[in-house]
Amino acid sequence: MITIGLDMMGGDYAPLEAVKGASAFMAYNKEEVHLVLIGDEEKLKLYLDGNSMNPSTYSIVHAAQVIEMHEHPTKALKEKQQSSIAIGFHLLATNKIDAFISAGNTGAMMVGALFSIKAIEGVLRPTIGAYMPRENGTLGLLVDVGLNADCKPENLNQFAILGSLFSEHILNIPSPKVGLVNIGEEEGKGNILTQAAYPLLKENKQINFVGNIEGRDILMDKADVLVCEGFTGNVVLKLAESIHDLTKRRNIQDEYFDRFNFETYGGVPVLGVAKPVIIGHGISGYTAFKNMINIACRMMKTDLTGKIKASFS
Amino acid sequence: MITIGLDMMGGDYAPLEAVKGASAFMAYNKEEVHLVLIGDEEKLKLYLDGNSMNPSTYSIVHAAQVIEMHEHPTKALKEKQQSSIAIGFHLLATNKIDAFISAGNTGAMMVGALFSIKAIEGVLRPTIGAYMPRENGTLGLLVDVGLNADCKPENLNQFAILGSLFSEHILNIPSPKVGLVNIGEEEGKGNILTQAAYPLLKENKQINFVGNIEGRDILMDKADVLVCEGFTGNVVLKLAESIHDLTKRRNIQDEYFDRFNFETYGGVPVLGVAKPVIIGHGISGYTAFKNMINIACRMMKTDLTGKIKASFS
Repeated sequence: MITIGLDMMGGDYAPLEAVKGASAFMAYNKEEVHLVLIGDEEKLKLYLDGNSMNPSTYSIVHAAQVIEMHEHPTKALKEKQQSSIAIGFHLLATNKIDAFISAGNTGAMMVGALFSIKAIEGVLRPTIGAYMPRENGTLGLLVDVGLNADCKPENLNQFAILGSLFSEHILNIPSPKVGLVNIGEEEGKGNILTQAAYPLLKENKQINFVGNIEGRDILMDKADVLVCEGFTGNVVLKLAESIHDLTKRRNIQDEYFDRFNFETYGGVPVLGVAKPVIIGHGISGYTAFKNMINIACRMMKTDLTGKIKASFS
Repeated sequence: MITIGLDMMGGDYAPLEAVKGASAFMAYNKEEVHLVLIGDEEKLKLYLDGNSMNPSTYSIVHAAQVIEMHEHPTKALKEKQQSSIAIGFHLLATNKIDAFISAGNTGAMMVGALFSIKAIEGVLRPTIGAYMPRENGTLGLLVDVGLNADCKPENLNQFAILGSLFSEHILNIPSPKVGLVNIGEEEGKGNILTQAAYPLLKENKQINFVGNIEGRDILMDKADVLVCEGFTGNVVLKLAESIHDLTKRRNIQDEYFDRFNFETYGGVPVLGVAKPVIIGHGISGYTAFKNMINIACRMMKTDLTGKIKASFS
C-alpha cells in the first residue's frame, strides 16, 4: 500500500480541483494507493460529499490554517504550524505518508522539502525541473528551473544524474540523452560555468552525455535531459508558458502547441530530497492533481529515491 | 551623403540576396546614400548586370577572399586580409565608409568590430541585441544575446543605456521602458548578478527602469529594453527562433508568429563601438539586407554613435 499525502488547500482552484483530481485518480486505482487529504475538514467533506470516491480509499487530516500564495515561505511555515503544508511535511517526516503533493506556495514547499525532509547524502543541491513538450510526443526534462539561481559546475553535473534517473524511471526513456544548455555547439563554448561543467558531464559515466545543446534544441529531441542553472531554466520555462498563452489568445489550434499547457503536467518532483515531494503549479486543474498523484505513485513503485541514493552513495 | 559599406559575400545566399537587398533599398533612396559593395568584382558585376540600380549610386571594392562561416574568427581575419570583412573594417577604420554591414562570419564581424573599430570610451563591453516581436506590432530589444556570456552588474547597467538609446532613436520608442530579465518580480529576487544589477538600474537616471521582468514578459510590452547577460539572452533568442521554425513546419498561419521570422529583421548593430557595424543573420534574405542598410542609415542620420558617446562621457 502506497500512502500519498495531498494538500487540498494549495493552488488557485483548491479544494475543488484537488478533490476532482483525487477522484479521477482513484477511479483507476486498484486499491494499492491510500490518499491522505490534508485540509479544512469541514470544507473537504462538503466537496467530497457529491463525489464518488470510496471512503475507505482515503482519510482526511484536518489543517486549520492555509499558507497563502504570497506569504513569506520560511516565516509562514514557522508561524502556521497547523497549515496544510506544515502538516504535510510533518506527516512525511514521521513516515505517516510516503509522498507529499501540493500546488500551494512554491517557496514554502521548497523550504519544507529542503529543511524538513533534507537532501539525500551526497546531493549538494536538490533541484526542480520542468517538462518540455517535443513534437514527437515525448517530454524532455529541463533541470533546474529556478531552485538554484547560481550554480557551480558540480551542481550541473548532479542535476544531470538526477534528471536522468527521473527521465528513465518516471518518463520511461531508456538511457536518456543529456544535453548541456549552452551557447554554441562545440566543446569549449559558453560562459565560465558551462565551460567548466562540460568536462565533468563528459567524464560522468552515470549519464549519456551528448554535448551542448542550444536554445533552438530545447524543444527538439536532441537531448532528453536539458541541464542548466536555475536562472536560465526559469526564464526558458516561463517564456515557454507564455507561448501557450499566446497561442490560446490567438486561437491557434495545434496539437503540439496545446501541449505547452504546463498546467496539465502537474509539476515535477523536487529531485534529490530524501522523500518524494511534488510541487504543483498554482493554477493546477484536476488533470494536474491526478497526474501528480500518478507521478508520486510511479516514484514509489520504481523506488526512484532509492535509486538516487544508490547513485550518490 | 552617407556612405555605407556592404559585404556582398557574407551570408548563405550571397551575393544574390545582398544585390537584391541593395537594389530594393536604392529604389527608395533619394540620392543621399552611396553604397560601397565589397566582394568579388567579377561575380558582383554578373549579378548587378540584370539589376536596375543606377551605377552612380554605388561603387565596387574588390575583395579577392571570403571568410567562410565556420572559420576561426581571429585567425581568418589575420590571414585573409583581402577578405570582404577585413576590407570592410579597413574602409570603416580609415573613414572611407561610414558604416559596415555583413551577414558573414559572426565571430569575425565581432572581432573586427571590437578590435579594428574599438569600444566607445567608457563602454566596458560593447553588446549585441535582438528584436523581440510583440503582439502590439512593436519590437522589444533583448540585450545582450551572446557577445558577453559572463557579465558584471555594471555591464548590464551599460547594456540598459545602450539598448535604450537604440530603442529610442532607431525603433522610435520614446523613453523606452527598461526591464531586468529575472526570476521573480520583486526587488531582491534573482541570482547574484541580477540582485546586484537591480540597484544600479534603479539609480540610473539615464534610463526608464521599470523593474524585473520574467520569462513570460519577454514577448509582452511590459518593457521595451530587456536586459540580461548574453548567456540567457542567446538561449532565449534561439528558442524564439525555433518557435518560428515550429509554427512554419506545423503550417500555422498567424500574423504575430510570422513576425518571429528573425531572418527578415536583418540584425542589430554592435552597440557601443565607435562606428556603426551591423551583423546580419547568416540566412539573411534580401529584406534583411534592405533593413540593415536602413538601420545603418538611421544610425547615421540620428547620430546614434554620437549620442552614445555623449551618454558615456
